[in-house]
Amino acid sequence: MSAQSKASKSNDPAGATTGRMARKRAITRASLLAAAFEVMADCGVDGAKIKDITDRADVGFGTFYNYFESKDDLASAVLDCMIDDLGRRNAVATKELREESPAFVFAVSTRLVIREAAKEPIWQWWAMRPDLLVDRLRDGFGPFAKRDIRDGINSGIFHIDAGDIDQAWALACWVMVGGIHDIVVGARTANDDGFVAQATAALLGLDFASAQRVSTYPLPDYPPASIDWHFSRAEVD
Amino acid sequence: MSAQSKASKSNDPAGATTGRMARKRAITRASLLAAAFEVMADCGVDGAKIKDITDRADVGFGTFYNYFESKDDLASAVLDCMIDDLGRRNAVATKELREESPAFVFAVSTRLVIREAAKEPIWQWWAMRPDLLVDRLRDGFGPFAKRDIRDGINSGIFHIDAGDIDQAWALACWVMVGGIHDIVVGARTANDDGFVAQATAALLGLDFASAQRVSTYPLPDYPPASIDWHFSRAEVD
Repeated sequence: MSAQSKASKSNDPAGATTGRMARKRAITRASLLAAAFEVMADCGVDGAKIKDITDRADVGFGTFYNYFESKDDLASAVLDCMIDDLGRRNAVATKELREESPAFVFAVSTRLVIREAAKEPIWQWWAMRPDLLVDRLRDGFGPFAKRDIRDGINSGIFHIDAGDIDQAWALACWVMVGGIHDIVVGARTANDDGFVAQATAALLGLDFASAQRVSTYPLPDYPPASIDWHFSRAEVD
Repeated sequence: MSAQSKASKSNDPAGATTGRMARKRAITRASLLAAAFEVMADCGVDGAKIKDITDRADVGFGTFYNYFESKDDLASAVLDCMIDDLGRRNAVATKELREESPAFVFAVSTRLVIREAAKEPIWQWWAMRPDLLVDRLRDGFGPFAKRDIRDGINSGIFHIDAGDIDQAWALACWVMVGGIHDIVVGARTANDDGFVAQATAALLGLDFASAQRVSTYPLPDYPPASIDWHFSRAEVD
């Protein structure tokens, strides 16, 4: 059960209208997210006006605050949906590599995310808030990434201790976000994604020659974006 | 010649008063920095009032803006002095380790900086501005760190390419700042400095067993702080 429907239920003990109301709320929320993504892609997050977003979503201005506390809150929710989409595209793009080694999955996913972030305007805003971006990436990709790290430890290719998985993943996110930030501000080019992937693989304890090899592997095709605006972090807890 | 004395000279072609005026300016600037450090240590950067800083430095309120554009500008200059101090203390603390290997110098310096940052209140403010902190660390420690990385490559222990030194150092700074940030927000303890040092060593291409070894080496004594408030980044260009 989603956190949202739980919350609705508490105000509606009989549960008579829960299903319909919750569905309606979910649709309005998704419309606001999709509209925000479009407006923010055009004007940037700072330049996006709430009025333009509610107009595009075809809801009243005041309705906005029934769903989001602030524009930053909305931008976070948009980012969560984008990260969810990237996670699912990574899973498709690296499906065959999974049989090879989790190190390939990790390095290729890292590079694909960096390349996507470097070209998508909305990421430029997030790149300037690296601590927040680390938080969202760490949580959003965490379950998949930590599974890959654990697989790599179990198969003997990642040499960190199993007790250090959370720490290693947190630092890998800092490296990834640092890489994105430095590309966005022009201190590094998008083609340096391989070096960033190499650094994350090395800090997981992959031997360095292998870290170089997996991070220079030809990138597979990346499925096109298909963002599910109904995704929300609370619903998958 | 310092950038500051160059600037004064252009307004004083004869150069008659340059020396005395420049000395007086340098002393006032240093007083403001020392006062800011004390006030910020007590009240945090956000809580520090410019009036309290000018009072403690015994200069008029308006004088402040002859030296700094804003409180953030002043906080940056304070940080630069602190980083300069850390650099010199690192050099003393790791002097004997230098004969052993640049990897020891790098790992021990990283750990000492993280421990210092975790206990000094003013760093908590910087930890929440990770992109700015990366910038200052990267520039402030850069000359020493890049020399150590180059030494490590030349002696065959760091396996990154010589052409990647700038990139590697930039990402090492992100790891260090990420480590400091996560300690400050309570997501990691100050005792995890070893794991952060291990990650930075690994991303430089040190083999992983050695990265573990150098990052668990007993820490040498750290000389007490002795911050030179006359230090300014412009003067060492």
